[in-house]
Amino acid sequence: MLTELSPKLLAMRDRVFKANLELPKYKLVTFTWGNVSEIDRETGYVAIKPSGVEYATMKPEDIVFVDLQGNRVFGDKKPSSDTPTHLEFYRQFPNIGGVVHTHSRHATAWAQAGEDILALGTTQGDYFYGSVPCTRRMTPEEIAGEYELETGKVVVETFRKRGIDPDMVPGVLVHSHGPFTWGKDAHDAVHNSVVLEEVAYMNFVSHQIRPNIGSMQQELLDKHYLRKHGANAYYGQ
Amino acid sequence: MLTELSPKLLAMRDRVFKANLELPKYKLVTFTWGNVSEIDRETGYVAIKPSGVEYATMKPEDIVFVDLQGNRVFGDKKPSSDTPTHLEFYRQFPNIGGVVHTHSRHATAWAQAGEDILALGTTQGDYFYGSVPCTRRMTPEEIAGEYELETGKVVVETFRKRGIDPDMVPGVLVHSHGPFTWGKDAHDAVHNSVVLEEVAYMNFVSHQIRPNIGSMQQELLDKHYLRKHGANAYYGQ
Amino acid sequence: MLTELSPKLLAMRDRVFKANLELPKYKLVTFTWGNVSEIDRETGYVAIKPSGVEYATMKPEDIVFVDLQGNRVFGDKKPSSDTPTHLEFYRQFPNIGGVVHTHSRHATAWAQAGEDILALGTTQGDYFYGSVPCTRRMTPEEIAGEYELETGKVVVETFRKRGIDPDMVPGVLVHSHGPFTWGKDAHDAVHNSVVLEEVAYMNFVSHQIRPNIGSMQQELLDKHYLRKHGANAYYGQ
Amino acid sequence: MLTELSPKLLAMRDRVFKANLELPKYKLVTFTWGNVSEIDRETGYVAIKPSGVEYATMKPEDIVFVDLQGNRVFGDKKPSSDTPTHLEFYRQFPNIGGVVHTHSRHATAWAQAGEDILALGTTQGDYFYGSVPCTRRMTPEEIAGEYELETGKVVVETFRKRGIDPDMVPGVLVHSHGPFTWGKDAHDAVHNSVVLEEVAYMNFVSHQIRPNIGSMQQELLDKHYLRKHGANAYYGQ
Repeated sequence: MLTELSPKLLAMRDRVFKANLELPKYKLVTFTWGNVSEIDRETGYVAIKPSGVEYATMKPEDIVFVDLQGNRVFGDKKPSSDTPTHLEFYRQFPNIGGVVHTHSRHATAWAQAGEDILALGTTQGDYFYGSVPCTRRMTPEEIAGEYELETGKVVVETFRKRGIDPDMVPGVLVHSHGPFTWGKDAHDAVHNSVVLEEVAYMNFVSHQIRPNIGSMQQELLDKHYLRKHGANAYYGQ
Repeated sequence: MLTELSPKLLAMRDRVFKANLELPKYKLVTFTWGNVSEIDRETGYVAIKPSGVEYATMKPEDIVFVDLQGNRVFGDKKPSSDTPTHLEFYRQFPNIGGVVHTHSRHATAWAQAGEDILALGTTQGDYFYGSVPCTRRMTPEEIAGEYELETGKVVVETFRKRGIDPDMVPGVLVHSHGPFTWGKDAHDAVHNSVVLEEVAYMNFVSHQIRPNIGSMQQELLDKHYLRKHGANAYYGQ
Repeated sequence: MLTELSPKLLAMRDRVFKANLELPKYKLVTFTWGNVSEIDRETGYVAIKPSGVEYATMKPEDIVFVDLQGNRVFGDKKPSSDTPTHLEFYRQFPNIGGVVHTHSRHATAWAQAGEDILALGTTQGDYFYGSVPCTRRMTPEEIAGEYELETGKVVVETFRKRGIDPDMVPGVLVHSHGPFTWGKDAHDAVHNSVVLEEVAYMNFVSHQIRPNIGSMQQELLDKHYLRKHGANAYYGQ
Repeated sequence: MLTELSPKLLAMRDRVFKANLELPKYKLVTFTWGNVSEIDRETGYVAIKPSGVEYATMKPEDIVFVDLQGNRVFGDKKPSSDTPTHLEFYRQFPNIGGVVHTHSRHATAWAQAGEDILALGTTQGDYFYGSVPCTRRMTPEEIAGEYELETGKVVVETFRKRGIDPDMVPGVLVHSHGPFTWGKDAHDAVHNSVVLEEVAYMNFVSHQIRPNIGSMQQELLDKHYLRKHGANAYYGQ
């Protein structure tokens, strides 16, 4: 256990606290159904929301620090029950800095339907370089085992098997459960959760208007994703 | 009639008053279309919203106390016209402490369609151990008789005939009418109403994306429900 | 023209002003797409919203008074372009005291689809004693003639031909246009607009869940409508 | 580059700043997904939102001025990446004074589905004299070329080929992307964006209720559009 937080970790705790409060602000969570974490890659410490604490009463001191093996290193509260899922992402996706889990309404509806969210337009293409995949159902053994860790593993398996780069598709739907997103830090991961919920809604409506709609043109997806990401990006100041 | 309320019943009145105000806060009711009650199991007295009173002007003193036979024991107002339904739940479901009725939009839409809300994902599984059942239509005799009492009876019949434990599935859809939920107290029953409306919406969207979708895996339902309820629960602080 | 308003008409103007402001409050209108009126049956004067005036800047003095033939009798502004429709309702439906027109989203969507809103549940049955009818399309001659008056006439025709009592079904959908509702005064007519929009939404969702759904049982409709209306009503204080 | 803004251009900058803030107010944008511009036809200067700047922190001084060839003539920021699309509209549609782009949810859902928004009712007919067209998909060459300029060109092509008058149908859906609207100035163009999003939602619901629904009667469309526009308009004060 740490006896106190370094200024750097203190600043990270503040960011994680604020990023958690963005979830109700953007109407991504009901009650306590969501959590945000961020990692300090130097120490390997992860700051995460405590389990089952209401957003309205949560204080910065409630944020819990764990190491990459899940041992609590600072804070009095129990970390989110989803912590092992977050940690698996940090271990397997080396470039990410923040992770978010929510039960946002439309992303969750797609997860319940067990369907990928296809890239139908530039709103998705500006942030996700292709479909947001939905995992397979978990096996009874995975569910009966270290469930939250296995949840992370089935996500990693989905990205590996389907050849999807988690740096270019910063989100996933866990089958019969809901979405996770990630990003360069906690704030960025929340941003991607907002985008995912937005495209989940719009793609639902597009599917209602035109059933069996297919993905957008690859050229347009390339154009929009690369207009905002990578060496030749020209969006923004 | 009681001449005054004991401190314990006064505290219950305050809880029931506040729980009723949560209904408009969570956008579960329009106008006066909802009511919350709580029971004191020691005395058998039930505190409930008065009939047809607007939430914006309701005062704690407006909350009415009735006994389990429906006799008013404290308060000047007429109790909610749905009181006999609440009382039937308190008589037949001995472990519950609070009851809520609303016409929340999506739960009511399912009730109008006469369909159960299947457990499609962990959002539902965290609170309801399986489908939220929809009752059969009431008979002309039941409707012409003590209608509100018969409404309660058809709910109880639904749970008994289908072998559903009301302690594990704390809500129901009354056919062509709307939802009731219950819980360990008034606040908990409101909480379950919020969850029910949320899953009613998400399951509607999932069904639109994938018609004829079936229930989630039993193993995943077991995992999530039991992660939050019972002897081995490990969610929360 | 009146030189001044009697205290009774002044009070009516205030009610009509406030009832108009309820439309944006209940999110029934965008911009200026709605209007409320009330009639003083003694003088036959009708107070109505001025045409094209924004709710945010409207003042009580902007409310216009017309007689039942549509002559302006008080106020500087031009009355709503829908005034001849309101007047036709006041002339033909002798028991009504207030009229509302909006383009509320879901009632309008049903009007565009040209479909009645069937009574699927008690939410509708508590206020509307059966389906809310949709008019036939207007003829080219009606559209080219006194269009707003003809709009009122086609509504009256719909109620007469189908044998619907406007006192028991206080609203209608005008084909390819949107809803009108009425009530005992301006406030009551707005209340019915809120209910109509609510059931329009819920019935849309119920139809999505169960296509070709039919109306609720007549016995249940009778029970709920008569529980709140008529000599044997027992809802409320 | 201008060294300072004339009072006229300063007033335009203020209008454009305020019109941009209307986008989040009307819930038409998430994050920075939208932009508004206005043209001064005398100088040919266009004032437009800077690229990627958050609405919450944007200041009037951030608004950028460009000429009709896209050269920046005043302001420190980079103009919106969609500027070449706006400029093409100003060059080809000589009567328009303001342009708006958003990713509003339902208009974007229709754009993703690649479908026109048919005029189903008077809400649309009051502002758009017929269907809001959806463009064809862009070619790989157009996407790889001057993409934002080509986006404008494909819109202009759509209106020319289909014989649609941009003064009477002030908006378009760009395939797999989202809506653009225009109007006599920035504020009016935003107004049309609000209307477009509203009819996009209502037409979605109408299509769900009645699949394969067709356009409204031409006579009714004529009546409503011409009641509000042109020499014989009689709506408003």
